[in-house]
Amino acid sequence: MSILVVGSVALDSLETPFGSATDAVGGSAVHFSAAASLFAPVQVVGVIGDDYPSEQLAFLEDREVDLSGIETVPGESFRWAGRYTHDLSSPETLETRLGVFAEFHPRIPAEFRSPEFLFLGNIDPRLQLEVLEQVQSTRLVACDTMNYWIEGSRDDLMTLLGRVDLLMANDGEIRQLAGQANLVSATRWVQEHGPSRVVVKKGEHGAILFHDEEIFFVPGYPLENLNDPTGAGDSFAGGFLGSLHGSGELTDGALRRAAVFGSALGSFAVEDFGVRRLARLSREEVADRVRELRHMTQFELH
Amino acid sequence: MSILVVGSVALDSLETPFGSATDAVGGSAVHFSAAASLFAPVQVVGVIGDDYPSEQLAFLEDREVDLSGIETVPGESFRWAGRYTHDLSSPETLETRLGVFAEFHPRIPAEFRSPEFLFLGNIDPRLQLEVLEQVQSTRLVACDTMNYWIEGSRDDLMTLLGRVDLLMANDGEIRQLAGQANLVSATRWVQEHGPSRVVVKKGEHGAILFHDEEIFFVPGYPLENLNDPTGAGDSFAGGFLGSLHGSGELTDGALRRAAVFGSALGSFAVEDFGVRRLARLSREEVADRVRELRHMTQFELH
Repeated sequence: MSILVVGSVALDSLETPFGSATDAVGGSAVHFSAAASLFAPVQVVGVIGDDYPSEQLAFLEDREVDLSGIETVPGESFRWAGRYTHDLSSPETLETRLGVFAEFHPRIPAEFRSPEFLFLGNIDPRLQLEVLEQVQSTRLVACDTMNYWIEGSRDDLMTLLGRVDLLMANDGEIRQLAGQANLVSATRWVQEHGPSRVVVKKGEHGAILFHDEEIFFVPGYPLENLNDPTGAGDSFAGGFLGSLHGSGELTDGALRRAAVFGSALGSFAVEDFGVRRLARLSREEVADRVRELRHMTQFELH
Repeated sequence: MSILVVGSVALDSLETPFGSATDAVGGSAVHFSAAASLFAPVQVVGVIGDDYPSEQLAFLEDREVDLSGIETVPGESFRWAGRYTHDLSSPETLETRLGVFAEFHPRIPAEFRSPEFLFLGNIDPRLQLEVLEQVQSTRLVACDTMNYWIEGSRDDLMTLLGRVDLLMANDGEIRQLAGQANLVSATRWVQEHGPSRVVVKKGEHGAILFHDEEIFFVPGYPLENLNDPTGAGDSFAGGFLGSLHGSGELTDGALRRAAVFGSALGSFAVEDFGVRRLARLSREEVADRVRELRHMTQFELH
């Protein structure tokens, strides 16, 4: 059984206080796959132009990622250029060129239609709904979204949220979605109007998993060598669903562990530009970091 | 054995999105005592004017807080007025009137000079050093500080930091003190140039305890009824040192537990204006919240 991800396959040009990169392979589907593929077979659906340096995705194929659902169409690939200054949590967008992504409608190959888990990367909720219509059966649907869709496509987004099992979004997006400043109240609102499971991502501060009445905190791993925050959220999602796939169950314990793996993968992702760090990451390194996160959070009452 | 706190005893006028209060008893020594007194005998040194509503501190005396070190001198008490808008972590100061605090030089009564722990609240580092000169013996000295002293009294502050065992400050202050944007690097710098133990307070995101090579995260308790952030940091410090006093040892386990009690007390403090919530808080409520924090952070690797 595999994890199906539908999202952007992009070329990112990045400037951070620590360096820069031009046309780095990225996008939600690529970051997600780079993380999840350490733990589970992954299938990708997306679109690229005929200019895409596909050879840079070879490391994914080495990890059993099935890229056959990535359509290549004539034209330019989706490009995003952004600059991070001191606030590493919110980049300034320098340029967005949708290219072939502008006309994208996900087509799920027949052999991808019964994945164990489905991750709907941050794209138009109408497209996320189109994916759901094509999927025949799955055990868990997770999705991401962003302020752009919360503002501009609220009705579609709320329809989508009624049909997914898990929303992963950052704290500002959860507050905006619920129209409430208090994060706990905002997340409870989302749980009442959407999935019972919500992961609130808080960048360097880690994440909070809400499922039913449970609340679980995982910190961000304390990094000294943070270089490029791009893709941290999708890498978190990949680590989360990859770990959950390995657990084979959706229990409280498995969800908590998944959040910790998500945090670990997010922290590795930001150590280098694009997917470079995830491309050379081993399961052993992840296991070490997860053990460190455990050591950094455990305590006894007496 | 007791905990000695030296700091401000103030009257705070507060506006938050959730209400307001005028001339509420507060100040670092009051918030600290209100928290620490749930766990240990506390001695307070400070100064008030003859206008101070001392009867509002009666709840502290009921908890064995020795207020005999608070001098009353003719004149106005220290008053601070602040307004919180959407960013509850940084109030706008509307007015500061030092009053009798302007001429304050702490005089430590003879019977207060050998406390088990000493907490130097956020006052001029020169005054914090004056306290150290009067204390004969103590097991642990903790201090707080703020951007005002980091900018204006850096030499005195660095001298102080060479003589304390534990610094508690917020993340922005740690970064400013070290002149480094990365929080881990900044804290390591502080550990090299000051105490080996540093608690980095992060408001709603909780706190990070660094001691020697160890790093321990505690989240902020997820509150729906936050009303007034004033005093959260001093309440954290009171809970931290109060718990540590109860442990009777300075081990890794005791320090971790102290950080969790700190977070719990900080979260109670902000539930109501001034020290109202801490004044009606019970040890049982604290124990419940600490157990909840444990439940919200524990996970198993398999």
